[in-house]
Amino acid sequence: MAEASDIRPGETAVSLPDAYHAGIYFIGRIHTPFKTRDDCPKNSAQSNAVGRVELDPRYLLGVKDLEQYSHIHLLYWMHEARRDLIQQVPAHLGRPRGTFALRSPVRPNPIVIATVELISIDGANLVVRNVDCLDGTPLVDIKPYFASVDSFPQARRP
Amino acid sequence: MAEASDIRPGETAVSLPDAYHAGIYFIGRIHTPFKTRDDCPKNSAQSNAVGRVELDPRYLLGVKDLEQYSHIHLLYWMHEARRDLIQQVPAHLGRPRGTFALRSPVRPNPIVIATVELISIDGANLVVRNVDCLDGTPLVDIKPYFASVDSFPQARRP
Repeated sequence: MAEASDIRPGETAVSLPDAYHAGIYFIGRIHTPFKTRDDCPKNSAQSNAVGRVELDPRYLLGVKDLEQYSHIHLLYWMHEARRDLIQQVPAHLGRPRGTFALRSPVRPNPIVIATVELISIDGANLVVRNVDCLDGTPLVDIKPYFASVDSFPQARRP
Repeated sequence: MAEASDIRPGETAVSLPDAYHAGIYFIGRIHTPFKTRDDCPKNSAQSNAVGRVELDPRYLLGVKDLEQYSHIHLLYWMHEARRDLIQQVPAHLGRPRGTFALRSPVRPNPIVIATVELISIDGANLVVRNVDCLDGTPLVDIKPYFASVDSFPQARRP
């Protein structure tokens, strides 16, 4: 994740709008074993780590029936990521790629989608496997994973 | 999608926080054949409709290399959805289910994830298949779909 000071040769920043168009509520926090960015796995598929999603108690009723799903989407907010880079040079690539062709947290709206395995639910706490984010990351949404609309094993990538 | 006036027996509303915790930029609009909610398919898997994603020109450089992916995630903002229902009674179910166990647009942060097939890119316009939202829906993000982290064909649901 880039700091405000952090721009590599070949990267491009844009001027963002003067005001936001909508607002986000943080609905909880994700607790993980990862205390620094260097500790974090590259993505959820490269993590077997178990974490705990702690939902704000006001939303407790919202998890009714969620235990019937084996996998869930977590949407979380990368609050430390800069938002103005529109082309980035990933270290593994070495040349510029568009922000919307990357899963980098650096993007105009720094929301990450991670699909994790749901292990158990106890009140407002969810135990999940495959977490990849920093301990304390703000949670934006939880959605059940539907293979019928979310799974495209044949999807092509470079 | 529920109107503010629209609450069914068995549904529960919560009191939302007094202020937002973060802000969203709308980065474009999604143009679809669907002019009313009744026109909209239930979800992207039940739609073969072709739509056009019109990106705000300031973000044009962000799609560089995206054409190498066959599928993309669109994140969009359901600006007409109420945000305070924490249990909802879907018509097909007839009893309350937690908001986080539903893909309903009615949720504290009304962001929808849709996976669509990318047909072509021309400047700041992307032609995609499987759109399911209202014409003019605000776009929040575009991400490449990675089968390695996004595809779980074995995921279990009720």
